[in-house]
Amino acid sequence: MHENLYRSLFAPRSIAIVGASADPAKTASRPLRYLVEGGYDGGIYPVNPKAQEIDGVRCWPDLRSLPEVPDLVFILLPADPAIEAVEQCGEIGVGAAMILASGFGESGGQGKAREARLAEVAKKAGVRIVGPSSLGIANLNRKLVLTGNAAFAESGLVPGGTFCASQSGSMIGALLSRGKAKNVRFAGLVSVGGEVDLGLGEICEATLDDPEIDSYMLFLETIRGADAIRRFAVGAAERGKPIVVLKLGRSEAAAELATSHTGGLAGEDDVADAFLRDCGMARVETLEALLEAGRLLRRSPVAAQRKQAPTVGVLTTTGGGAALVVDQLGIRGVSVVGPDEATRAAIAGTGIEIGTGRIADLTLAGTRYEVMKAALEAMLASGQYDMVVAVIGSSARFQPELAVKPVIDVGASIDRLATFIVPEAPEALAILAEAGIPAFRTPEACADSIAAALARRQARTLELAKRVSGPSEILDEMEGYEVLSQIGIRHADVEVVEDAGLPSSSLYPAAVKILGRNIAHKTDLGGVVLGVDSHDAFKDAAGKIRDRLVETWPGFKADRLLVQRMMSGAVGEVLLGYRVDPQVGPMVLVAAGGVMTEIIRDRAIRMAPVDLDTARQMLDELQSLKLLQGFRGRPRGDLDALAKAIVSLSSLAFRPEIEELEINPLMVGPEGQGAVAVDVVARIRI
Amino acid sequence: MHENLYRSLFAPRSIAIVGASADPAKTASRPLRYLVEGGYDGGIYPVNPKAQEIDGVRCWPDLRSLPEVPDLVFILLPADPAIEAVEQCGEIGVGAAMILASGFGESGGQGKAREARLAEVAKKAGVRIVGPSSLGIANLNRKLVLTGNAAFAESGLVPGGTFCASQSGSMIGALLSRGKAKNVRFAGLVSVGGEVDLGLGEICEATLDDPEIDSYMLFLETIRGADAIRRFAVGAAERGKPIVVLKLGRSEAAAELATSHTGGLAGEDDVADAFLRDCGMARVETLEALLEAGRLLRRSPVAAQRKQAPTVGVLTTTGGGAALVVDQLGIRGVSVVGPDEATRAAIAGTGIEIGTGRIADLTLAGTRYEVMKAALEAMLASGQYDMVVAVIGSSARFQPELAVKPVIDVGASIDRLATFIVPEAPEALAILAEAGIPAFRTPEACADSIAAALARRQARTLELAKRVSGPSEILDEMEGYEVLSQIGIRHADVEVVEDAGLPSSSLYPAAVKILGRNIAHKTDLGGVVLGVDSHDAFKDAAGKIRDRLVETWPGFKADRLLVQRMMSGAVGEVLLGYRVDPQVGPMVLVAAGGVMTEIIRDRAIRMAPVDLDTARQMLDELQSLKLLQGFRGRPRGDLDALAKAIVSLSSLAFRPEIEELEINPLMVGPEGQGAVAVDVVARIRI
Repeated sequence: MHENLYRSLFAPRSIAIVGASADPAKTASRPLRYLVEGGYDGGIYPVNPKAQEIDGVRCWPDLRSLPEVPDLVFILLPADPAIEAVEQCGEIGVGAAMILASGFGESGGQGKAREARLAEVAKKAGVRIVGPSSLGIANLNRKLVLTGNAAFAESGLVPGGTFCASQSGSMIGALLSRGKAKNVRFAGLVSVGGEVDLGLGEICEATLDDPEIDSYMLFLETIRGADAIRRFAVGAAERGKPIVVLKLGRSEAAAELATSHTGGLAGEDDVADAFLRDCGMARVETLEALLEAGRLLRRSPVAAQRKQAPTVGVLTTTGGGAALVVDQLGIRGVSVVGPDEATRAAIAGTGIEIGTGRIADLTLAGTRYEVMKAALEAMLASGQYDMVVAVIGSSARFQPELAVKPVIDVGASIDRLATFIVPEAPEALAILAEAGIPAFRTPEACADSIAAALARRQARTLELAKRVSGPSEILDEMEGYEVLSQIGIRHADVEVVEDAGLPSSSLYPAAVKILGRNIAHKTDLGGVVLGVDSHDAFKDAAGKIRDRLVETWPGFKADRLLVQRMMSGAVGEVLLGYRVDPQVGPMVLVAAGGVMTEIIRDRAIRMAPVDLDTARQMLDELQSLKLLQGFRGRPRGDLDALAKAIVSLSSLAFRPEIEELEINPLMVGPEGQGAVAVDVVARIRI
Repeated sequence: MHENLYRSLFAPRSIAIVGASADPAKTASRPLRYLVEGGYDGGIYPVNPKAQEIDGVRCWPDLRSLPEVPDLVFILLPADPAIEAVEQCGEIGVGAAMILASGFGESGGQGKAREARLAEVAKKAGVRIVGPSSLGIANLNRKLVLTGNAAFAESGLVPGGTFCASQSGSMIGALLSRGKAKNVRFAGLVSVGGEVDLGLGEICEATLDDPEIDSYMLFLETIRGADAIRRFAVGAAERGKPIVVLKLGRSEAAAELATSHTGGLAGEDDVADAFLRDCGMARVETLEALLEAGRLLRRSPVAAQRKQAPTVGVLTTTGGGAALVVDQLGIRGVSVVGPDEATRAAIAGTGIEIGTGRIADLTLAGTRYEVMKAALEAMLASGQYDMVVAVIGSSARFQPELAVKPVIDVGASIDRLATFIVPEAPEALAILAEAGIPAFRTPEACADSIAAALARRQARTLELAKRVSGPSEILDEMEGYEVLSQIGIRHADVEVVEDAGLPSSSLYPAAVKILGRNIAHKTDLGGVVLGVDSHDAFKDAAGKIRDRLVETWPGFKADRLLVQRMMSGAVGEVLLGYRVDPQVGPMVLVAAGGVMTEIIRDRAIRMAPVDLDTARQMLDELQSLKLLQGFRGRPRGDLDALAKAIVSLSSLAFRPEIEELEINPLMVGPEGQGAVAVDVVARIRI
C-alpha cells in the first residue's frame, strides 16, 4: 500500500489537473504552469471543458475522456463540484486525488456535512484523498511541483534531502523561501490540508523509503491520526531519518489556569508534547530552528536512556556572542560547563591558556586556524560534552572561508558539533551548510535546536488494545480502590457502612464520605465530613451528609457511606492521573498535590505505560517535589514508592475499559513507608 | 560638562592615535585606516616613534610633540604603557582618552591593582577615560570611525539615528553588520569597555542632545553606574528617544534556586530587570529584537499607568503565519483578541466577512490593496487595540512593493502598527524599513519587541539620600518592630521578658524567641519555641532556649526573650523584603510565603519607593496570591492591607541608614482585617 501511495503522490507517471485555468492571474492556473515550468516529464492532462489548450498543453473536457488513467489528480474545483470529480476519479480507477477547495469541516455546519459526504464518496470510489484545503505537493527530486501556492514560482530551487509536511498550507511556501535562503534543500513538501482521508502521518509514512529523503520537517497545528504519526516516526527512527517539528499551541499551555484535575493540568498542547517526544521527535519552539535544526539532528544521535543531564561546551574567540548562546541555553535548561583541567591542558598545547570560566574563550588569538582546530578537537575528544558549539566572530564576515575552515575540517570526522555565527555572515553560513555542518544565525535558534536535539528520546512503538468509544460511568470510591489494588497501589484503610451501621472504632479519627457511582466532586456536594473520632460523631456526620445530599442531589439514595482512616505522618502529597486522550491515547501525569495543584503548573506528563526510569525522570521534573528530597532539613519522602505508583498507574494503558483514573491526593510517607491513596475517581466504559 | 564630553568623544576636531601600527595585519593599524578611509575631516595624529608616516599620514614621536592638543586620544598600547600615555595626555591637557588594552580589573589580582592605578592617574591628570578594553567609538554622522574592531571595515554604511552602546566590545561589530542587513542606520556606536572612569550611562548621557540620534540600543552584561544610567534614561524619555536593551543573565535567574531570603529571591538579573524597567527602557530577550524593536518603540508611546493588560490585534491573509505570532505573543503573556462586532462590521464594508476567531483572517482576498488597507484602518480606529500586527504572506516575496503598500499608507498617519513578513522577503522588509514601519523577520522577534514595547513604563527620576557604605548590624526583633511601627506596618503583640520575668498570660498561646542583635536565623540556633500556653510552659521554653544557645552560640548572653502572641485566623502568608542593592539602589520585593517561598520562584520586584498602584500590580504578578483572591471558595485575604504594607516598606528608601529589612512571614488576615508581621530581620548601618 505504501508503495502505491508513494507512487501516486510522489512519483506519478501522469497527472490530471481538474479545473486548470487559462487565466494566469488565477490560483487555478498555477499547478499546470509550475508542473510544465518545473520540467515534470510524465503525462500532463489539464481538464477544462472550456479550453482547447493551456500553456501549450492540450486540454480535456472531463476525466472520462483522458487517454490513460492518471496516477494522481489535482482537483481545483469549488467544494461541491470537487466531490463530483472524486466520484469520476473512482469511475476511471484513479488511486489518489488532492483537493484544493476549502469550505469543508473547518467552516462549520454545512461544511461538516460536506466533509462527511466527501469522505463517503471517496471511500466508495476507492480514491485516497489529500485535503481538502491542500495547497499541493512537490517532489523536487522528480521535478514534480503540483501546487497552487504562489511561493513555488521560486526559481533556482536545488533539490535535497528534507521532506516537509505542514497542516498550514501557506507555511509550505514560507518554509520553501526561508529554507532557500538558509541553504535548506527540500526533497519534497506537502500541504496535508483537512486530512479528511490521508493524514500527515500516513502521507509521511509513504515517503519513508525514498532514498533521497534524509530528514523530516513538520509544521503542526494539532495532532490528528496519532497512530499513523507514531508508525511514521518509528519508521523514520529505524532509518536514521530525524524529525524536527514546530507545533503551534505553546502559549495555550502557558496561559492555561492550573486546575486540580488531570484534564485541566494536561491541555491539548501538553498532551501533544508528550506524544511527540514519545515518538522520538525533536520539538523546537522557533521558526528559524525548524529550518536549521535538521542539519544538527542528522549529526547528533539520539541518546539511549540518559542517566544525567546533557552537557554543552562553548568554544569561542568572541566572548559577548558566546555569552548570548550560553544564556539562551540556560533559559532552556541546558547547562554549559567549562573545559575540565585535562581539556584545558590539551588546549594549552595550542599555546593559548584559557580561563576556568564556563566559556572556553580563545580570544583573538583563536582566530588562527591551528588554534581553533586543535581546541575544538580537544573539547570534542574530552568526553565531557554531548555537544560543542563553536562561536565565530567578525572574521566570519570578512574571511568566511578561512573563519569556518577549522570547524569544517573537524566536523568532517566528528559529530556533536554546532556553530553560531555572531556577525551577519551569509557566506560563512552557506559554506558551513554546504559542508553539512550545523550552523546558526541567531543564538535563540542555536539554543533551541540544541535543546531539542539533546531532549530527544528513542521513538517508542506502542502495541495497545484497541479502544472503542462508548458511554462511561464513574466508579464509586470503593470500586476505584479495587482497581488500585489490582495494579498494586495502596489506599488508606476503609470500611463501607450501610444504612444505620457503624464502622470499627479502630478507624477513628476518620473521614466519612458519601459512596456512590458518578460522583466526581463529593466535597462540593457536601458529602464529606473529616475528623470523625467516635461513634457519636459518626452518627452526627452520617446525618449531616444525608441531609445535605437531599438538598444538593435530590433523588440520590445516600444509603452507603465510606469511612476512611485519616492519614498522619505523610510528608507530602501528589496528584496522580491517568487518562486516555481521544487523539493520542493513554497518558499518565504526576502533579503537585493539595493546594499546590491549584497554584502552580507543576506537573510531568508521559504517554503510558512508563518504566521506572521514566517515572523517576517525571519526579525530577516536579519543582514541588524538592520538598521530599530532604530539602532544608525536611524528612525525605518515599520517592521510590511514588515512582512505582506511577509505573503501576500507567499500566492501565493495557486495560482498555478504563478511560480515566485520578488519585488526588496520594499521600507520600517518609522514606521506606510507601505512598497511600486517600481518594480516587475512576471512569470506566460500560 | 556633557557638552565637552560629547565634543571630545563624538565631535573631536582632532584625534591622536597612540601606538598606531604600520603593519596592516595588526589590530593597532585599524583605527587610523578606518579614520582615513571613513573621510574624517579633523586633525589626525598617529603617534609612533618608529614610523615617519602611516597610510600617508605623518607620524609623531610622542604626544608632547603634537602641533595642537587633540580633543581625543585613542591609546592602543599594552596596559602599563597605556597608563603612562594617560599621564602624558594630562600633561598636554587632553580631555578624553580611550584605552584598547585589556589586562585590568577583569584579569584578577595584578589587573585590579593596575586598574586602581589607571583610575588614580586619570583622575590626577584630569583625563576622562573610555575603557580599558574599549574597542572604540564611531559617530557615523561625522564620519568618525575610531575603532580596532574588524567589523568596521564594512563599506556602504549609511548613517542614521540609532546610537548603540555595548559592554561587549565584539558585539558592536556584530550589531553593525546585522543592523546593516536589517536596514538599521546607526548614528554612532561605542564599546564602553571596563568603565573604570566613564560609564555607559555617562557616555550615553553626553549624546542626548545630538539631534541626529533618535533612539538607543544597549547591549549589557551587568549594571554599572546605575545613577548615570537612570539620568540618561530619564533624559532620553524627556526627548522622546526610546531605549531598547538586551541584557545577558536571564538564564541565571531562570536557573537559580529559590531561597527564603530577599537576596536569594532577587538575583543580579532580577534586580537589573527591575531597574531597567523603572528607567522606562524596553528590555528584549532576542538578538533580532534588539535590532528590530527600535522602529516599533519610536512609533509606540509609553502608556501612562496602565489600568488593564494591553491588547493586540492580528490582521492577516495567511492563517499559519499569523498563528505563529499569536503563539509567541501568548508565551510572553500578551493576549491577542479578535475584532469586536463593530470592527468586524467595519471590515465587512470591504466586502470580506471575517470570522469571530482571535485572528482577523482576510484570506487570499485580503491581498487586494483596498481590502487590506481598509481592514487595517478599521482595526486601528476601533479603539480596541494597543497594537495591530499585519501579517503578510507570499506576496511580500514576489510583489514586495504591492504587498506592503497598504501598511505603509496606513502607517504614514497611524502608529501602533507592526508587520510580520511570513516568507523570506528581504525587499519587502527593506521597503518597510525605509518607510519607518516596524517590520519583523521572525515571529519571535516580532512578539518579543511588541511585548517589550507594551511593558514599558514611564522613566522615573529618583531623588534619594546619598548612601555611604560602612559596617552594619542586624537589629534585634523588637527594634525591627519599632522600625515597622514607624512606617505603619503592624506586628503581632509582643513583650520582652528579661532574666527570670514572666510575660502577661494574655499573650498565650505564644511563640518564645531569643532576642538579641545580629541574629538572622533564630530557629537554626534553637532560639524559638512555639505553642507556649502557660507560665510553666514558658519557664520550660526559656530554659530550653538558654541551654541550646549555650551550645550553638557560646558566649551569647541569652538574657532577653521575646514573647509573641501566636496568630490565628490568617488566610495567607507572604514574604516582604526591602534591600539596598549595591549597584542599583533600594528595591522592594513580595514573594510567596511559608513553604511556598522555597518551592516556587513566585515574586515581584520593584525599585523602591512604590505607589499603591504599583504595589497592586506586584500582587497581581504573584501566582500564589490567587489563593487570597477568593479562589475556589476560599476566604478572600486583605490584599488592600498587603498592598499598603508594600508601599510602607518601600518608603524605607528615604531612610539611608536601613540597608535591608525582611518580614517573613507577614500574615494576611481575611478581607478588612489587615496584615501583621510575625518576624522581622532588619540590618542597619551603624
